[in-house]
Amino acid sequence: MKSTNTINLKNRPQGRPKLSDFEFTTTELPQLNEGEVLLKITYVSVDPYLRGRMMDAKSYIDPFELDQPIVSGCVAEVLESKSSNLKAGDFVTGMMEWKEYQVLNTDNLKKVDSDKAPLSAYLGILGMTGLTAYFGLTDIGKPKKGETLLVSGAAGAVGTVVGQIGKILGMRVVGIAGTDEKIELIKSEYGYDEGINYKTTDNMVQAIAKACPNGVDVYYDNVGGEISEAVLYNINKFSRTIVCGAISVYNKTELPKSTSVQPFLIKTSSSMQGFIIFDYKERHPEGIQQLAQWLQEGKLQYEETIQVGFETIPQAFIDLFDGKNKGKMLVKV
Amino acid sequence: MKSTNTINLKNRPQGRPKLSDFEFTTTELPQLNEGEVLLKITYVSVDPYLRGRMMDAKSYIDPFELDQPIVSGCVAEVLESKSSNLKAGDFVTGMMEWKEYQVLNTDNLKKVDSDKAPLSAYLGILGMTGLTAYFGLTDIGKPKKGETLLVSGAAGAVGTVVGQIGKILGMRVVGIAGTDEKIELIKSEYGYDEGINYKTTDNMVQAIAKACPNGVDVYYDNVGGEISEAVLYNINKFSRTIVCGAISVYNKTELPKSTSVQPFLIKTSSSMQGFIIFDYKERHPEGIQQLAQWLQEGKLQYEETIQVGFETIPQAFIDLFDGKNKGKMLVKV
Repeated sequence: MKSTNTINLKNRPQGRPKLSDFEFTTTELPQLNEGEVLLKITYVSVDPYLRGRMMDAKSYIDPFELDQPIVSGCVAEVLESKSSNLKAGDFVTGMMEWKEYQVLNTDNLKKVDSDKAPLSAYLGILGMTGLTAYFGLTDIGKPKKGETLLVSGAAGAVGTVVGQIGKILGMRVVGIAGTDEKIELIKSEYGYDEGINYKTTDNMVQAIAKACPNGVDVYYDNVGGEISEAVLYNINKFSRTIVCGAISVYNKTELPKSTSVQPFLIKTSSSMQGFIIFDYKERHPEGIQQLAQWLQEGKLQYEETIQVGFETIPQAFIDLFDGKNKGKMLVKV
Repeated sequence: MKSTNTINLKNRPQGRPKLSDFEFTTTELPQLNEGEVLLKITYVSVDPYLRGRMMDAKSYIDPFELDQPIVSGCVAEVLESKSSNLKAGDFVTGMMEWKEYQVLNTDNLKKVDSDKAPLSAYLGILGMTGLTAYFGLTDIGKPKKGETLLVSGAAGAVGTVVGQIGKILGMRVVGIAGTDEKIELIKSEYGYDEGINYKTTDNMVQAIAKACPNGVDVYYDNVGGEISEAVLYNINKFSRTIVCGAISVYNKTELPKSTSVQPFLIKTSSSMQGFIIFDYKERHPEGIQQLAQWLQEGKLQYEETIQVGFETIPQAFIDLFDGKNKGKMLVKV
């Protein structure tokens, strides 16, 4: 094998990403050196945050370069190894280029155990998704038993995990999502006490007040925009907002305006805090251990939307912005 | 003495408060009962936050009632006492009605020592103003030596104290204010390293970047609005914004819109937190002790704008919104 299929960033998306923003190409595979492994990609994770790296703007990680491969979290099989850490047949997770095959140093790869959990789980409930839910809620949200937790993007990959952790911790959990089917799903599968379909609700301020009669103590915000504006009118004294995602604005070419949050934060002595999961890098093992325990105890359910075939990766990514996924969106190669 | 001059809230202000929103009247003084004192007001504190209580809206304290006296922090002299805690001639601080004379239970009064500091200091540097600066910066701001602290409303009562505490703690301190005279003042009197006159600056984003070449680690926000929008473009990874005041919006009848903060908080893993000084009620003695020590060591300067005469109280309050005060605004009765 001398070359591999590769997906490059062709254009920086203007607004909603399009298939023409991506380019399929073929790249050479280098020789395997000491400490390196040849990998065959098994699962590719497509995530909203990748949209941010496609823009040429200062952010928490460097932007992707044009005419270079996209990089995301993946699971891969080791085909050949020149490292003592891994052998052929092992499976690993890590950040990988969108290539069917690639050669990587083993330093940033983590071996996973397919007996403990399905391989795809290491990109979801036991990977960035689960850890994002876990550290955001427990570390920033400082949840207390009996408090009310409101989650936007509740049927998404992170939202479904956040709601379940909230229930494990004894909170009343209310979710916001965009279809009746999703509302039904979060209540029947993920333990949400109540759900609000924002697309069929005229007055979100009132709807949140009704679903959260004791107000909102912790708001896990996956969306930003108008939904999060409506939440402000319902936050309690000393409330904590975890600013995890702003999918509603990722495709906007100009920065959106919204109701100023400052007067609400003063009135209620409340906080808002942004984070990315890399901030907790040193605590990842602790998070994985807790999540794996809850998973084995049957306390955590998860769902995946898996598309199949290397060539479907760009479309799977675009589909995220239409809410076509239930739970974690993956591509099986 | 049977009655006293009194200032009632006549109308809830629409926009900027007007003299006609207040009414001078005369009220009867009740008999003095056990545990009560008769007080004569010495100093009245007028503060921007009172604007919030004049509105009929849910907030951190109940709104003032129409045709009832305004209440604010005051210093008063004890004229008669039926309490074992206080005797005639003592001076006390506490929340008092805007009346020349009043009868109060001693439970919420605190005796002050006019030998340790001037009486007016107990409404400023050793009162709510100083404590607001101290707890906001130290508890929410989590300042570290060498970090950059940016303060809006830097020449105001709280801002001048925040800057000095920042310097005591070893920070680079930059202030924003609205006249060249104020900028000169904060640099010459209050130790600010750099100042920005937002009224003569076209591009605040660039001006902040220039004054804070290492970015903004802690932003002590007294104003909100456009100034705080410009700050967002300059915050560092893990920055902390202390949302103390939003004087720019207190007089707005509709809630203002501004650039959404969420994408900035995510990009930088930053936090914004609102508070009021009552949140720290149990820690006030600790704060007063630290501030008094710095004051006695000559490390804290403060300024007061003192208007004279009971009848000037409403105008003194209105003047706050025109920035006519330097430092703490008080009325000496």
